[in-house]
Amino acid sequence: MFNKVLIIGCGLIGSSILRAINSKKLSKKIFVLEKSKSNISKIKKIKSNCKFIKNINNKISDVDLVVICTPMSEYKKIIQKLNKSLKKNCLITDVGSTKQNIIKLKNKILSKKLHWISSHPISGSEVSGPEYGNKNLFLNKWCVIIKEKKQSSKKINLLKKLWKKIGSNVILMDPIKHDKIFSITSHLPHLIAYNLIKTAQDSQKIQRKNLIQYSAGGLRDFSRIAASNEIMWRDIFFSNDNIIKAINLFTKNLNSFKKIIQNKNNKKLLSRLSNSKKVRAQIIQLKQDIAKPDFGRE
Amino acid sequence: MFNKVLIIGCGLIGSSILRAINSKKLSKKIFVLEKSKSNISKIKKIKSNCKFIKNINNKISDVDLVVICTPMSEYKKIIQKLNKSLKKNCLITDVGSTKQNIIKLKNKILSKKLHWISSHPISGSEVSGPEYGNKNLFLNKWCVIIKEKKQSSKKINLLKKLWKKIGSNVILMDPIKHDKIFSITSHLPHLIAYNLIKTAQDSQKIQRKNLIQYSAGGLRDFSRIAASNEIMWRDIFFSNDNIIKAINLFTKNLNSFKKIIQNKNNKKLLSRLSNSKKVRAQIIQLKQDIAKPDFGRE
Repeated sequence: MFNKVLIIGCGLIGSSILRAINSKKLSKKIFVLEKSKSNISKIKKIKSNCKFIKNINNKISDVDLVVICTPMSEYKKIIQKLNKSLKKNCLITDVGSTKQNIIKLKNKILSKKLHWISSHPISGSEVSGPEYGNKNLFLNKWCVIIKEKKQSSKKINLLKKLWKKIGSNVILMDPIKHDKIFSITSHLPHLIAYNLIKTAQDSQKIQRKNLIQYSAGGLRDFSRIAASNEIMWRDIFFSNDNIIKAINLFTKNLNSFKKIIQNKNNKKLLSRLSNSKKVRAQIIQLKQDIAKPDFGRE
Repeated sequence: MFNKVLIIGCGLIGSSILRAINSKKLSKKIFVLEKSKSNISKIKKIKSNCKFIKNINNKISDVDLVVICTPMSEYKKIIQKLNKSLKKNCLITDVGSTKQNIIKLKNKILSKKLHWISSHPISGSEVSGPEYGNKNLFLNKWCVIIKEKKQSSKKINLLKKLWKKIGSNVILMDPIKHDKIFSITSHLPHLIAYNLIKTAQDSQKIQRKNLIQYSAGGLRDFSRIAASNEIMWRDIFFSNDNIIKAINLFTKNLNSFKKIIQNKNNKKLLSRLSNSKKVRAQIIQLKQDIAKPDFGRE
């Protein structure tokens, strides 16, 4: 499928792409650019067929595909180097979690000779680092490909084919729609989880009670999401303007929830609580989660 | 250990206690009072050794232990009947999730000849009904026993022994402390999860986009908690006054989170996000959750 692929940033997602491309034999050669020495030694241990490079330079000028898997705050520097080093016609994609900011940046500074089509595989986790990577990470997961005007349909098809080959369900979306949807299904839940854990930490200080040890009643679930990589999530929270709208809607609902409780409004409370149940059923039916009670934890 | 035990309400928790007492042979006879015909037929299917009764009356006057596992809103009626039917010295416990309200109620209306010592096994789930019950539900889970002045130490020891025999780690707590701790570790997380799902439902209407299908990015975790039994949770939200304080603290933190994002305060945001990570590590170390990434879901 490819002669030469370059993966920039080889943590959870990058190393999973590396494993998947190797396993499906989708490229004759794979280059990996990874800054962290500890990550490099972890990747060496998994004996992936790849060649490490230290910089973006003319040695990689003839790659067919570049996959950027670094935090989004590093994209600017990377694009400037790719502009200088890559030959015409190379396809670039990235796996960043917000899209309007990326499209804006690349439209501004990417060399016109290069093709950038943005991707977002919905397959993150609370853990990061190549040791958690998995060739099946993308299996049956959504991968959003960002549609813009004036894209090469040949390149779009190539990118689609790559994600499908490594197991994803591909969907095309424009960047505005993407950022709206994921502000609700991913960015707000993470922010709320971080905020709940902060609130529990504050309460522990106020109450002077070691309450974390009783977290199996619900708190522990939020702690998993709130353990996600801080650099990645800082970049997301700073990049998606929809998050402020989402916080405002959440706060409005929380205020009304509080009033319902304070007024002991039985009917309204029961209707709220039973409505939520339907969403869980829908999520399971859509195969977005496993059906086992308590996620099958023992 | 007991001659006769009566379980009132035989859903997830009640049927798990039934199974556990049977399995450990802790009572010669077990009576079950369950209103729902569908639940009764489900319990019959698991072939538990028990006798169904239809009312609280003199036939059960000589039980040694009553375990109340109904929603808390039914306690008042139940106590009034127990007052009339039970012989002196019987031990009553319950498994309700808030405690100051229960203690207040029983102090007001329970006959002085009876002993009530309140329990709270931390072992709920998003599912309800006897079909999900399990004799090992309490294994290695906390069970809080509520400590009050003027309790029979003999009866406390008996109750402790019961919970320990069926696998729980027992801890004694006063009702005020209990309600404060669980307002943060359980009640607030549930309320926040319900509120997040409501916000996602509202957003879906506003955006006119079917966003639930992309919920694997974080939303799905909240949907599990927000699928919990609505009667049980209505009773909890109406019973624990600490929940309002908890909402207020959460809202204060959320407002400051919003400002940090709007002001692009890099240092403060990174410090918040990395602090949360420590809580997850602590929860795993305290064996309050499994260590596998993504709860071991596939």
